[in-house]
Amino acid sequence: MPRPKHKSRDADFVERRRAMGGLAFFRHMLEGQMPQAPMTKRLNMRLLEVDEGRVVFGARPTRDHYNGMGVVHGGFAATLLDSALGCAINSMAPPGKIYTTLELKINYTRPLTEEVGDVRCEARVIHLGSRTATAEGRIVGADGKLYAHGSTTCIVVDMKK
Amino acid sequence: MPRPKHKSRDADFVERRRAMGGLAFFRHMLEGQMPQAPMTKRLNMRLLEVDEGRVVFGARPTRDHYNGMGVVHGGFAATLLDSALGCAINSMAPPGKIYTTLELKINYTRPLTEEVGDVRCEARVIHLGSRTATAEGRIVGADGKLYAHGSTTCIVVDMKK
Amino acid sequence: MPRPKHKSRDADFVERRRAMGGLAFFRHMLEGQMPQAPMTKRLNMRLLEVDEGRVVFGARPTRDHYNGMGVVHGGFAATLLDSALGCAINSMAPPGKIYTTLELKINYTRPLTEEVGDVRCEARVIHLGSRTATAEGRIVGADGKLYAHGSTTCIVVDMKK
Amino acid sequence: MPRPKHKSRDADFVERRRAMGGLAFFRHMLEGQMPQAPMTKRLNMRLLEVDEGRVVFGARPTRDHYNGMGVVHGGFAATLLDSALGCAINSMAPPGKIYTTLELKINYTRPLTEEVGDVRCEARVIHLGSRTATAEGRIVGADGKLYAHGSTTCIVVDMKK
Repeated sequence: MPRPKHKSRDADFVERRRAMGGLAFFRHMLEGQMPQAPMTKRLNMRLLEVDEGRVVFGARPTRDHYNGMGVVHGGFAATLLDSALGCAINSMAPPGKIYTTLELKINYTRPLTEEVGDVRCEARVIHLGSRTATAEGRIVGADGKLYAHGSTTCIVVDMKK
Repeated sequence: MPRPKHKSRDADFVERRRAMGGLAFFRHMLEGQMPQAPMTKRLNMRLLEVDEGRVVFGARPTRDHYNGMGVVHGGFAATLLDSALGCAINSMAPPGKIYTTLELKINYTRPLTEEVGDVRCEARVIHLGSRTATAEGRIVGADGKLYAHGSTTCIVVDMKK
Repeated sequence: MPRPKHKSRDADFVERRRAMGGLAFFRHMLEGQMPQAPMTKRLNMRLLEVDEGRVVFGARPTRDHYNGMGVVHGGFAATLLDSALGCAINSMAPPGKIYTTLELKINYTRPLTEEVGDVRCEARVIHLGSRTATAEGRIVGADGKLYAHGSTTCIVVDMKK
Repeated sequence: MPRPKHKSRDADFVERRRAMGGLAFFRHMLEGQMPQAPMTKRLNMRLLEVDEGRVVFGARPTRDHYNGMGVVHGGFAATLLDSALGCAINSMAPPGKIYTTLELKINYTRPLTEEVGDVRCEARVIHLGSRTATAEGRIVGADGKLYAHGSTTCIVVDMKK
């Protein structure tokens, strides 16, 4: 019986990432040579920019992201920050190494609503050590207002063959 | 021109929440008298249990929640914990008051995959003050393994009429 | 019976702070018109610079700050960051209002030892709202290396008369 | 020229810790066979109880720990929690391995003053993995009130010979 298609697709991405390192991998993603991650697609988030140690994700909160009390669920900003922080760190990962998240902290500074429109989440690496790395990031609206900010710690893992 | 239907529906939930307080509100939700939040529905999460100061959410991670590297995105656990922590605190909110999240911290202890199956996230209030409250919570699999844990700080807000 | 001297001294500082607001208060401290805080003095930390929303503290770790395993205790960086983050936010507090800390998070990026010598901790306000504020800060050595960074959430409190 | 005495004393403790593992080491400390850490001594904190994965530290806040505004500095609770959380995790470290702190988060739930008297900080390991571990802890007064709680992530390090 053939393996399900998604298995081989995933395995293909992991294989490409192992060979390329993080920065080249995210550039392929930006060029449309591989799809963005299922979770970020599900929440209408997308990688917009990538450099060594710095990425920008974009997103547009809608009523689908609401918490039932008329504002966006805290999980939306958490997912957006986790995406940007993790990619900023992984943009510095060499071939064969991947950074995985140990902890994430988010400060919520303003409620998000669909009226806010497009937001950008920029993240930057703060520390890159031999085993762990940290990054900070912010979610800002088109009006320049800050909606959330956060930080993360990641640990490097050898990608299994 | 009539206001869009979702506006009035949201306004209705907010009005019910203002009148009922948190515990009665979540019990209505459990009984199916009002829908669960859009964001949690979107990610296949649902409120399972509620008491004063303690709630359980259930979820089942699938490939739709993956991060592109063969495991579940960190935003999944963050959203699940934010839901449970926020509801645990709001289960103690009197009518007319709502707690909104100031900060959220998540520790990731094991990767989640679709093979894990159903997970439960239980959260409990740790401190309830006159203006702020804190809670802690954990995501545990059917096998008893801990996948993530976290804490939050919320601030009380008067619900606008 | 007279009240103990330290009571009246403390009360005097609190009274001055109530009348002056944060920025003027910290400037008085810099000018030596009032002593630095007992805890920071105890750990050889001192306020070096203050502007609206930005402060710098200096410190010099010694063996007195060690954890018993040959490096500086994590509480040293935590105290230094808490001092700088809290003062950065309070530098924006008007007369009669004080910001108190709800939560503090520290990322440790390198071990501190007495060989590091003088370190600086610069903190900046990230968000100043009507009820809460957040700040971020970093501890850097004379060699430019980053030893720790962190963030905080504070809540505004009316100073009691 | 002989090495300074403290160097050889420190080196002796590190050597004992390497040979004993964490639990036996902290039991020696409890029995008075080696001194408590300089930083905790400086702040009048002391290890009171130790089991595998659980420790209790005691402390008594005084005016020496104040922040200048009539309450205890946030660094006091941070240092106490960091001590307890780190020791809880290290109580599970085998000989030759030590856990070092990557991040620490503290929630402040009540102001500490000298009137509070003795406080206890109990910490427990939440997750012990092959490379990292997490713990949670709380600071409670003799009156049973909660003053602060927190969590940490540590990473295991091979002790250099």
